[in-house]
Amino acid sequence: MITVNVDLGDRSYPIRIGADLIGQTELFAPHIAGSSITIVTNETVEPLYGDALRAALAPLGKQVSTVVLPDGEAFKHWETLNAIFDALLGGKADRKTTLIALGGGVIGDMTGFAAACYMRGVPFIQVPTTLLSQVDSSVGGKTGINHPLGKNMIGAFHQPQAVIADIASLRTLPERELAAGLAEIIKTAAIADAAFFEWLEQNIEALNRREPAALMHAVKRSCEVKASVVAADEREGGLRAILNFGHTFGHAIEAGLGYGEWLHGEAVGCGMVMAADLSVRLGLLDDAVRRRLVALIEAVRLPTRAPALGDSRYIELMKVDKKAEAGTIKFILLKQLGETLITDVAEPALRATLAACL
Amino acid sequence: MITVNVDLGDRSYPIRIGADLIGQTELFAPHIAGSSITIVTNETVEPLYGDALRAALAPLGKQVSTVVLPDGEAFKHWETLNAIFDALLGGKADRKTTLIALGGGVIGDMTGFAAACYMRGVPFIQVPTTLLSQVDSSVGGKTGINHPLGKNMIGAFHQPQAVIADIASLRTLPERELAAGLAEIIKTAAIADAAFFEWLEQNIEALNRREPAALMHAVKRSCEVKASVVAADEREGGLRAILNFGHTFGHAIEAGLGYGEWLHGEAVGCGMVMAADLSVRLGLLDDAVRRRLVALIEAVRLPTRAPALGDSRYIELMKVDKKAEAGTIKFILLKQLGETLITDVAEPALRATLAACL
Repeated sequence: MITVNVDLGDRSYPIRIGADLIGQTELFAPHIAGSSITIVTNETVEPLYGDALRAALAPLGKQVSTVVLPDGEAFKHWETLNAIFDALLGGKADRKTTLIALGGGVIGDMTGFAAACYMRGVPFIQVPTTLLSQVDSSVGGKTGINHPLGKNMIGAFHQPQAVIADIASLRTLPERELAAGLAEIIKTAAIADAAFFEWLEQNIEALNRREPAALMHAVKRSCEVKASVVAADEREGGLRAILNFGHTFGHAIEAGLGYGEWLHGEAVGCGMVMAADLSVRLGLLDDAVRRRLVALIEAVRLPTRAPALGDSRYIELMKVDKKAEAGTIKFILLKQLGETLITDVAEPALRATLAACL
Repeated sequence: MITVNVDLGDRSYPIRIGADLIGQTELFAPHIAGSSITIVTNETVEPLYGDALRAALAPLGKQVSTVVLPDGEAFKHWETLNAIFDALLGGKADRKTTLIALGGGVIGDMTGFAAACYMRGVPFIQVPTTLLSQVDSSVGGKTGINHPLGKNMIGAFHQPQAVIADIASLRTLPERELAAGLAEIIKTAAIADAAFFEWLEQNIEALNRREPAALMHAVKRSCEVKASVVAADEREGGLRAILNFGHTFGHAIEAGLGYGEWLHGEAVGCGMVMAADLSVRLGLLDDAVRRRLVALIEAVRLPTRAPALGDSRYIELMKVDKKAEAGTIKFILLKQLGETLITDVAEPALRATLAACL
């Protein structure tokens, strides 16, 4: 087991990364203070890992209940969140009840937001069971739900007590979801760590084959990079925005197709190709680097061509992105591997990128 | 104009108290950074003060929009909150948009919660137009909505940029709402400031007559006391709980009758009588002090007898109070004017108080 510490003062917490961690009581024990626990999971993950988690918690002698939600980004909205609140209040959960998010990013984001809002804040633990959530949503405390007019528009910053990233849970992950997780890992390397990007180029087939040692290193390095960025800018005042590389285009793809059609990681993968195209088009980035990025995204079998929603629809969707200010879209662009630039972009260049990538 | 500063480090903010403040551009100017403002108000307050506020904001050259919600505690739920999000997203509000809450406690709590959650947090300004909200919900950063199973169960701590408490707006306040505000002022004095309690006993008729000088002093002293409690315990870990004197019983009255039947301040007024009865019954408080408290509550024409919901229903409702832990109800009791005790209470004493007060 490896531990990455996220350093946020009195909101600091450990990320444990290793195989078969879900069943280990001692990983949960130090982080649960109250007398009750509510596990929030979905109908896909519950039959796979629900019993193992409850068996690990049993020796703690707490009252444990489980809320099983429908599976998918399409359910990341207020009605589903309310089902968590109904269960908490119906079960008389109090201010010291610990929520445990057992599942992927949707479960983590919704459980974290429920924890942020229930009685104005209760503790929670993330048990991410997808590669994407192990590297992405478990670091940084972003929680929330979608709104019909935009993704993650309603939410809060709320840090977990701990993250338990069980690499063994990746064995059951569908191929598409593995690739979606690799997209975020590639993103992290591209924006902040050229050496890690090279490591990925050399080890991408081992990752595709789900070799545990390769997965553990990739998860660890991604979490470390993201943790250092978040520690420097917890509330996303500046630096942290670089983590949204590929996300402005990606969110537009997700919103335009309807949430759940493409996976978040698929949209981000394609969004990175588009952001790199725009970076080259503006003279910021060497085309050879763009080609390396595209090759890596293709190697994990992610889409590199965006759905044909039409230029104007893309621009409309990007204007409600959270990074937009007064209707001006902010793009995270690449200058070289490990170096980014945040800027607005004149519409002709943007339309040229859309024309090239649709 | 008087200013009370709420000292919370980088979340500190001023409370301005005075007559005819809503129309003063310079009170708003320093607190609005972005390019757009969304005023959130209700159908009662909008015709009274909406134009004055928009006239004050006009010289700032910002894009100003207004969301008008239905009036009342019965609408303090997710559907109404969503109407704010719909308006913000529909109007392309961004991360720097400032929300202004123009109205009473319900508008303040919902607008503050919307500001806490919209894009994970945007700035907001409170313009409380009721006595209750001027002394209560504008200090301390508590925001939220109700759930069918409990009041303010879903919410966040989110501090405003500033509070503009316009005493002139109290001229239009219905009698019941004035009394409800005085209940919170009496509460603040009872738990933390015996001298202020005596001042209230001497000036209660001036307050009933809405004499501006008396109202300004009462609002100022209440805000000061509450600000000092909140500064010592922003997230309600300990001391801050004393502000809930009368609220355990009061919330049960509100929830039991259905939100909106009794005003919050009316329920708290009656709840203080019940908490004082319980304090005397447990040998903590001199009965003469209880009688002084009852006399002051009667002097502002607040109810001192609780609705007959039945003992068991009261106990059931109190067990889901946010202060309850593992089903044990925590009461804030009075030892003398200015001194409180937080404790659980054996059921026979609690049932005796319920029998005496229903």
